[in-house]
Amino acid sequence: MSLIVIGSVAYDGVETPHGKVDRMLGGAATYISLAASYFTKVGIVAVVGEDFAQKDTDLLVGHGVDLAGLERVPGKTFFWAGKYTPDMNDRETLTTELNVFADFDPKVPESYRDSPYLLMGNIQPKLQRNVRSQMRKLRLAGGDTMNFWIADFRQELLETIREWDFLLINDGEARMLSGENNLKKAAAKILEMGPHTLVIKRGEYGAILFRKDSYFVVPGYLLENVFDPTGAGDCFAGGFSGYLAQQGFDLESDHITRGELSRAVIFGSVMGSFCCERFGVERFRTLTRAEIDARFQEFRRFTSF
Amino acid sequence: MSLIVIGSVAYDGVETPHGKVDRMLGGAATYISLAASYFTKVGIVAVVGEDFAQKDTDLLVGHGVDLAGLERVPGKTFFWAGKYTPDMNDRETLTTELNVFADFDPKVPESYRDSPYLLMGNIQPKLQRNVRSQMRKLRLAGGDTMNFWIADFRQELLETIREWDFLLINDGEARMLSGENNLKKAAAKILEMGPHTLVIKRGEYGAILFRKDSYFVVPGYLLENVFDPTGAGDCFAGGFSGYLAQQGFDLESDHITRGELSRAVIFGSVMGSFCCERFGVERFRTLTRAEIDARFQEFRRFTSF
Repeated sequence: MSLIVIGSVAYDGVETPHGKVDRMLGGAATYISLAASYFTKVGIVAVVGEDFAQKDTDLLVGHGVDLAGLERVPGKTFFWAGKYTPDMNDRETLTTELNVFADFDPKVPESYRDSPYLLMGNIQPKLQRNVRSQMRKLRLAGGDTMNFWIADFRQELLETIREWDFLLINDGEARMLSGENNLKKAAAKILEMGPHTLVIKRGEYGAILFRKDSYFVVPGYLLENVFDPTGAGDCFAGGFSGYLAQQGFDLESDHITRGELSRAVIFGSVMGSFCCERFGVERFRTLTRAEIDARFQEFRRFTSF
Repeated sequence: MSLIVIGSVAYDGVETPHGKVDRMLGGAATYISLAASYFTKVGIVAVVGEDFAQKDTDLLVGHGVDLAGLERVPGKTFFWAGKYTPDMNDRETLTTELNVFADFDPKVPESYRDSPYLLMGNIQPKLQRNVRSQMRKLRLAGGDTMNFWIADFRQELLETIREWDFLLINDGEARMLSGENNLKKAAAKILEMGPHTLVIKRGEYGAILFRKDSYFVVPGYLLENVFDPTGAGDCFAGGFSGYLAQQGFDLESDHITRGELSRAVIFGSVMGSFCCERFGVERFRTLTRAEIDARFQEFRRFTSF
């Protein structure tokens, strides 16, 4: 295995101005794994209940995702439901039923433990640290977090990300974590907390990659129709880390160039943009690597001068 | 003269989280002219009152701005005061005193009328049309407008921009003018209204240039301190049109490439970013062309991959 992904595998109910789906496959680890699967071999660490459908297993397996670390336990799968605002830049959570996720104690299968790359989706920092400690030969580890952990589990979160190579968060979370409103100042503070690479996701406005001595900014892809932004940030993370894993990159090594990291950010943006084109994970049923590479070239065309 | 600029020359009172200035030089035509003056010879068409200070005349003249079209009439100069929100993405108008601007009947001096380039700052569409009709040898004309004219003077505005080559507005105005929430769809509709080139300004998030068959997106420059965003959009317009005038570009001609327009967008972004670094027009007292070119190169570094 090349990239190990820890996070939620869930069912989601989503309402956007374009429609409503009561129950469909979702969860951070699902989106990350599907997006990363276009670049590298992925193994998942997560938990589902007895209600987890065979067709959803099939979708992951069909993308070459290793499910040795997907525990199936008595009870129901994590369920989340939310409704987006008309401009889709914000959403309201309607339901969160942790179900089997409440007692999740992630165990990394032996077959995963020598994998060099680890991406930790947004879950309790303690569980992220637990998983990281089970890995033996990491070259690159990082992940996501959210406002809830920043506000109420700050110390635990700081101890967790201290060991990370990269952190991927959105602009609001970066401001909250750093206490700085200005993104450049926020980034400088966060880069003192451990990660040597910070990616700030800005939704429709794109993303910024910060390192101590440089930064890279990419605008968002202009979609004509955003059907459902759920999972777009996770798909960004999957494209970003999947590309780095595919290239065999090690962020600490001397040979990595800013250009290589920038391309990872573009592949992240590409995967996030595809995600929004259909509800849930639907776009990944038909998406091809050729379409991904074509959109990468499109980013070049509309940003170069 | 190369570029003729019509718009307001005013005094502004501005409050931002970084401070408060009760009265300083401002107005769209002022910002546009100062920004464009780094690229081309500029002539201004505007009106001021008897209170217009010699030191403010001196600043414009010091930048080579021709004031043959700056009328001075009995009364007071246009005064505007506003206060920004803490994140500086919005502002509240506290005072608008039109003063001598209320009866402004722009007369283009004979020495300006054969100039090939015209930029019309945000004023009543009727006045913009009036000025355009006085020009004899235009190769490129365009300008700005605002929500007030879009909502309450729509027919007059549509008749005005029908004759323009380019329109520069912000994202909210583009949505309002087109009735479309999605920017790509909004742009397609606006490009049916006359201008063959549309630039949508997105404040801190940068800008997008749309033409029928292509588009170009640039992210905003990351400033560590935004002291005062007043005039940034006008400085963008000044950099954009000043660069095109300097190059002798004609948007209708066959030889113009998307690359040339893209570079104009970058110079617009560069000038807008400098504007925010100090209160009012202060930054233009020290700014050099070398600093402008260095920041242009910086845009290349943080956007190329």
